[in-house]
Amino acid sequence: MLSEFELIARYFDRPQAPDNVVRLGVGDDCALLAMPPGQMMAVSTDMLVEGRHFFAGTDPDKLGHKALAVNLSDLAAMGAKPMAFTLALALPSADESWLAGFAQGLFALADTEGIRLIGGDTTRGPLNLCITAMGSVPENLSLRRDAAKNGDDLWVSGTLGDARLALEVLQGKSVLPDDVLALAEARLHRPTPRCALGMALRGIARAAIDVSDGLLGDLGHLLARSHLGADIHAASLPAGPALAQQPAQMQIDYMLNGGDDYELCFTAPLEKRDAVLSAAASANTLVTRIGNLKPGAGIRILDATGMTLPFTSNSFDHFGKDM
Amino acid sequence: MLSEFELIARYFDRPQAPDNVVRLGVGDDCALLAMPPGQMMAVSTDMLVEGRHFFAGTDPDKLGHKALAVNLSDLAAMGAKPMAFTLALALPSADESWLAGFAQGLFALADTEGIRLIGGDTTRGPLNLCITAMGSVPENLSLRRDAAKNGDDLWVSGTLGDARLALEVLQGKSVLPDDVLALAEARLHRPTPRCALGMALRGIARAAIDVSDGLLGDLGHLLARSHLGADIHAASLPAGPALAQQPAQMQIDYMLNGGDDYELCFTAPLEKRDAVLSAAASANTLVTRIGNLKPGAGIRILDATGMTLPFTSNSFDHFGKDM
Repeated sequence: MLSEFELIARYFDRPQAPDNVVRLGVGDDCALLAMPPGQMMAVSTDMLVEGRHFFAGTDPDKLGHKALAVNLSDLAAMGAKPMAFTLALALPSADESWLAGFAQGLFALADTEGIRLIGGDTTRGPLNLCITAMGSVPENLSLRRDAAKNGDDLWVSGTLGDARLALEVLQGKSVLPDDVLALAEARLHRPTPRCALGMALRGIARAAIDVSDGLLGDLGHLLARSHLGADIHAASLPAGPALAQQPAQMQIDYMLNGGDDYELCFTAPLEKRDAVLSAAASANTLVTRIGNLKPGAGIRILDATGMTLPFTSNSFDHFGKDM
Repeated sequence: MLSEFELIARYFDRPQAPDNVVRLGVGDDCALLAMPPGQMMAVSTDMLVEGRHFFAGTDPDKLGHKALAVNLSDLAAMGAKPMAFTLALALPSADESWLAGFAQGLFALADTEGIRLIGGDTTRGPLNLCITAMGSVPENLSLRRDAAKNGDDLWVSGTLGDARLALEVLQGKSVLPDDVLALAEARLHRPTPRCALGMALRGIARAAIDVSDGLLGDLGHLLARSHLGADIHAASLPAGPALAQQPAQMQIDYMLNGGDDYELCFTAPLEKRDAVLSAAASANTLVTRIGNLKPGAGIRILDATGMTLPFTSNSFDHFGKDM
């Protein structure tokens, strides 16, 4: 039986020299971080629980990726550059093949995004992953939820709805051909955090939020903080490649209320349209203009003729429904 | 049924104006922190699991205190000043009386130590509390585990062993009179993080670690990082007031291998003895000199005649034994 300290050493303590940011990493009571001059530290934490955020038996490599990706998505939505993260892990047993797979998925993404593991905690318990991610952003360039202005364009990155489609199939509620399911599952299991886009949008976008619980619900939070409403043009919503092959009603439902998309929804002034497109191109990320902000409250979904479609937010609430 | 967002708002979103450190708190994708000039950020994370770190049915007020206290103890051991923390919480159900009690214990300690909740995550799942705490410390004054020097005095704050004594009684392995148990339980349920002492020891102590898993085990980590050994004088170890009423063999066993003490074990040069005592007095915290560092490896426990007593580290390993 591996002890806690042997576990940590074997899978999570990757010797790395101190650098300009991480002055002391894993192995002391605390890690020590130096902030670059003029930068704020952006901090976000997410907890993933087996049976709620992922199925029992999920490939640990995918889980390692996703646990970090969902936190990086929060940094992206702030326009922050990833710096460092902590990992707390409750495991039913010290299963070495599980740990090896988890560490592989975790560090592959960490290395891609240039973020270092600086500390953590491991314990025995029902499977639970808690990551706290730290990034840096100049305060006046951060993309806050409360910074949207009336008339701003509303944009979304990437595509929506494929993760939800995959979830429905994995739950046995729907069926897809294998090749289509594979497309959708990639979005459910390996979301791409939009860090490069978030950083490229500094000084261009005004407000941003990451779409994790469904577009309508998450946009609703941004609008509430900015005291505005929005019109969304249904025909402009970007469906994921798997979802795009499904019935029209399912498409719009999953795009608006899907969950697990980990895309950025952001606002920008009309005169920044070209700048947004250039930023997106530099970050190699698709962006789509889906509507506009308006005075008042609430979200209207408009069809191609300008008629309001009946939709209500049904976003994922972690206390409201089961996975 | 409360939604996740209603839960957060009701119990954890305490409106607070931005200050010099917390520029943006709960309610966005990330919090934003500004570091005071010349300061490092110290970061620590701990996860507490029901049935392992605390009994099912533990008073939520005590749990709120302890979940934050164990993280603050890590900041203290670095000499860091508490700044901010995040909380991720998995709960079997949205139990309002539990949440109210938990928030009360949590914020009472947070307010005492001047640390602000800046973000978090709540979800349904087996009860699990994960806190990440952030503090500030000038890099050259931080109390690292690897900074001890040969010949340093070895010190410990407060008293040892009472938390373990209480645990044994609560597990039905031992019996104590009610008034003695109350003394011991206070240490198990409401440990006092030694933040004031940690800060007062900046520039005086060399190395420090917090005693959470047992003195021998934790000191062992410090010694390993500093490539040194230590002699401990058994007669000088400070027993907790409840433990001091127990048999001598139990006293020394629980002081060395008790766990859950949340005291600081630190080293300082001999010429700093008066400075250590003054710092401790300024922090209103007892400190006791318990031994010295030596070349080599390992810890010897010496009796009053200088004979070596047979003791081995049996510190708490979260994968090695059950609570």
